[in-house]
Amino acid sequence: MTDNVPYKTYLAENEVPCDWYNMRADMKKKPAPLIVPSTLKPCEAKDLEPVFCSDLVKQELDDTTAFFPIPKEIRDFYRMFRPSPLIRAYFLEKALGTPAKIYYKFEGNNTSGSHKLNSAVAQAYYAKAQGLKGVTTETGAGQWGTALSMACAFFGLDCRVFMVKCSYEQKPFRREVMRTYGASVTPSPSMTTQIGEQINREHPGTTGSLGCAISEAVEAAVSNPGYRYVLGSVLNQVLLHQSIIGLEAQTAFRKLGEKPDIIIGCAGGGSNLGGLISPFMGEKLRGECDYRIIAVEPASCPSFTRGRYAYDYCDTGRICPLAKMYTLGADFIPSASHAGGLRYHGMSPVLSELYDQGMMEARSVRQTDVFAAAQYFARTEGILPAPESSHAIRTAIDEALKCRESGESKTILFGLTGTGYFDMTAYQAYNDHLMGDYIPTDDELEASFAKLPKV
Amino acid sequence: MTDNVPYKTYLAENEVPCDWYNMRADMKKKPAPLIVPSTLKPCEAKDLEPVFCSDLVKQELDDTTAFFPIPKEIRDFYRMFRPSPLIRAYFLEKALGTPAKIYYKFEGNNTSGSHKLNSAVAQAYYAKAQGLKGVTTETGAGQWGTALSMACAFFGLDCRVFMVKCSYEQKPFRREVMRTYGASVTPSPSMTTQIGEQINREHPGTTGSLGCAISEAVEAAVSNPGYRYVLGSVLNQVLLHQSIIGLEAQTAFRKLGEKPDIIIGCAGGGSNLGGLISPFMGEKLRGECDYRIIAVEPASCPSFTRGRYAYDYCDTGRICPLAKMYTLGADFIPSASHAGGLRYHGMSPVLSELYDQGMMEARSVRQTDVFAAAQYFARTEGILPAPESSHAIRTAIDEALKCRESGESKTILFGLTGTGYFDMTAYQAYNDHLMGDYIPTDDELEASFAKLPKV
Repeated sequence: MTDNVPYKTYLAENEVPCDWYNMRADMKKKPAPLIVPSTLKPCEAKDLEPVFCSDLVKQELDDTTAFFPIPKEIRDFYRMFRPSPLIRAYFLEKALGTPAKIYYKFEGNNTSGSHKLNSAVAQAYYAKAQGLKGVTTETGAGQWGTALSMACAFFGLDCRVFMVKCSYEQKPFRREVMRTYGASVTPSPSMTTQIGEQINREHPGTTGSLGCAISEAVEAAVSNPGYRYVLGSVLNQVLLHQSIIGLEAQTAFRKLGEKPDIIIGCAGGGSNLGGLISPFMGEKLRGECDYRIIAVEPASCPSFTRGRYAYDYCDTGRICPLAKMYTLGADFIPSASHAGGLRYHGMSPVLSELYDQGMMEARSVRQTDVFAAAQYFARTEGILPAPESSHAIRTAIDEALKCRESGESKTILFGLTGTGYFDMTAYQAYNDHLMGDYIPTDDELEASFAKLPKV
Repeated sequence: MTDNVPYKTYLAENEVPCDWYNMRADMKKKPAPLIVPSTLKPCEAKDLEPVFCSDLVKQELDDTTAFFPIPKEIRDFYRMFRPSPLIRAYFLEKALGTPAKIYYKFEGNNTSGSHKLNSAVAQAYYAKAQGLKGVTTETGAGQWGTALSMACAFFGLDCRVFMVKCSYEQKPFRREVMRTYGASVTPSPSMTTQIGEQINREHPGTTGSLGCAISEAVEAAVSNPGYRYVLGSVLNQVLLHQSIIGLEAQTAFRKLGEKPDIIIGCAGGGSNLGGLISPFMGEKLRGECDYRIIAVEPASCPSFTRGRYAYDYCDTGRICPLAKMYTLGADFIPSASHAGGLRYHGMSPVLSELYDQGMMEARSVRQTDVFAAAQYFARTEGILPAPESSHAIRTAIDEALKCRESGESKTILFGLTGTGYFDMTAYQAYNDHLMGDYIPTDDELEASFAKLPKV
């Protein structure tokens, strides 16, 4: 601890950003638009408004406005848990014996346990402002559902969560947190929607999937007056809200007179990664500064590293618009991976386009290597990380060890998206040496790609 | 949000206290000493050193030194999770419609989930400094065991935790957190100690108690060379380490130009309450300032409000020194209360003496009222509180509502000791309207008092 940099850097409340930043505004080649499955034409506001809140549709479709002012009510809510600290990982550096400087932006210090609350409060606010009764959503690992429940309790909105059935049964405590915040939680597939009934009929005994829960939540929204559907990742609007992570980090680095060389984030649908890198990618897009940016995904669900860049369905029921993205195919069901939040078959269209343009790298890591990093991090830095976040930890450690070999003193920033308190079943499997690694075969992926829509 | 006070006040790292404060130094009438059961004479260092680390024994017995410098290694560890924020509960105030100003000092933003880490790191450091191999302890709700596991992992000490058997079985995730930090966790009563064997023989099928787990942990320490026993509450040394909570709060209030009128803390063994009030009680003892100080305990385990102030055993096996304290009797087993951390039969001797001198008040609250407050708090302030902490929330809300009646704008400070992520079984019981209230009868208490030692 000889550096002048404090262990934790908090911004003062008046230093917290007042605008979200929209990366798309600085992209010369924009991400491909969402398209309507029936017409194959680009989605317009009228196509999306039956499903999404109107203000959010505007944010979704706007690829030219760089900054969106954050409404005061949202900034007030942010004060509950933001600014989040930028932490210098002195203890980890020392344990690794690396000359690298490691920083992490920690988003886990709120009851939802992750960065998901950044977008949940925004989406709940706009729903309330539109005079809606409530919102519907799906949740897999449960972080998004928890975050949305908290936001809805605050704004007095009804909140209906479809929770992937296996998670509903395996994570009863996540469910209880949502109930404590007043949300109703339904295991998916359920018998409360047509699509759920159909899936239950066609696949008796199924324990559900994220794509299936999305279909149910969308159906519940469009068939109930006064309701809209909200989603915690993938969408442009979500990356916009999550830019608060990167903006705070950028301001903190400026205060410290430092600058990251490498920026690392875990990537499922892309909400955290997109938020963390936003302003840095902006600098890179504008040619002001260069950064190495690394997306880390599980080897069990490798959309960037082994997927196709193509238009695909966002949900199992195929009722959502088509998105052009890196995808493993909408029917791809990753095998039991404990990093529940990283199991989506597709990837944010914005990040997909940036990856395709060579603006960022991607790599996949194995689950057992991820948990080894998680345990190491817990013991040195004190925080018990979420399995999702631990993908970024794994890669940050790997990069720091390369610096030890080369003697370089690079500055590494990674996103620590959340805590693992509700993931102890996975930790137990690791502690008991019962955790395996699943990696899809080329044949499995080819079979899935064969079902991609012909667009 | 019209006040000039920020929602969260963090001290800068150079404002964090460098000394712990020892309330006993400012007490004219000192707490009664621990006594040796066999001789009934006051404990000296030589009586305690076979059980406790030598530096901690010095702290335990010193009732004249006001300030103890915090060693650099401990201050470095504190940087991981301290300073903790002093939060202005604007949202709670607004929801209650009270003119009161409510502040809380939030100690839950670390992986142990509570304030327990403040003392765990200190005790682990002194054990390491003494060249010991490891430490033993007991844990009930699991917060202390988790905190100690984290501290031991950091300093490279072996950590053996005896976990009350019913908690071991009901809270497998707490157990896994400890294992992730490398601790060994044994359900108590076990067959690994003589006292455990004896208790299992005499009470077949018992699910254990805190007093019994203490006996086992002490036996394991004294019968293994290179080990000592550590404890997370009740002791003078623990209150000393926990004074960091109050010292930070006091500094933060000074920065804000504010001063609390009422200070509220939950009380089990007294570690949080004692730490929170320390510097404020110091001012009160020195006649510099007056504060209303309220200890809140569960109606199911009411040591202050219905106990006796007498010498009693600290553990079921009766191998520890006798302490003069408010007690329900060492054999008193509170009925199933979910606030596991507040179930100890006795109370810190320092706090007991202060209460006896009329320097503070105490009240007891019912579990269902506590959970109603917990849910209300979660929905308004965002944080899902631990059941223990929620006793203080209940009383803070009650006092704020009195201010609404009277129109007074009092400043209330309460300690939010931790988060409830591992207590969702209790929340579920509350959500499902299956939670009851247990209050011991006078006859039960009289029967327990009858077994108090004749000293």
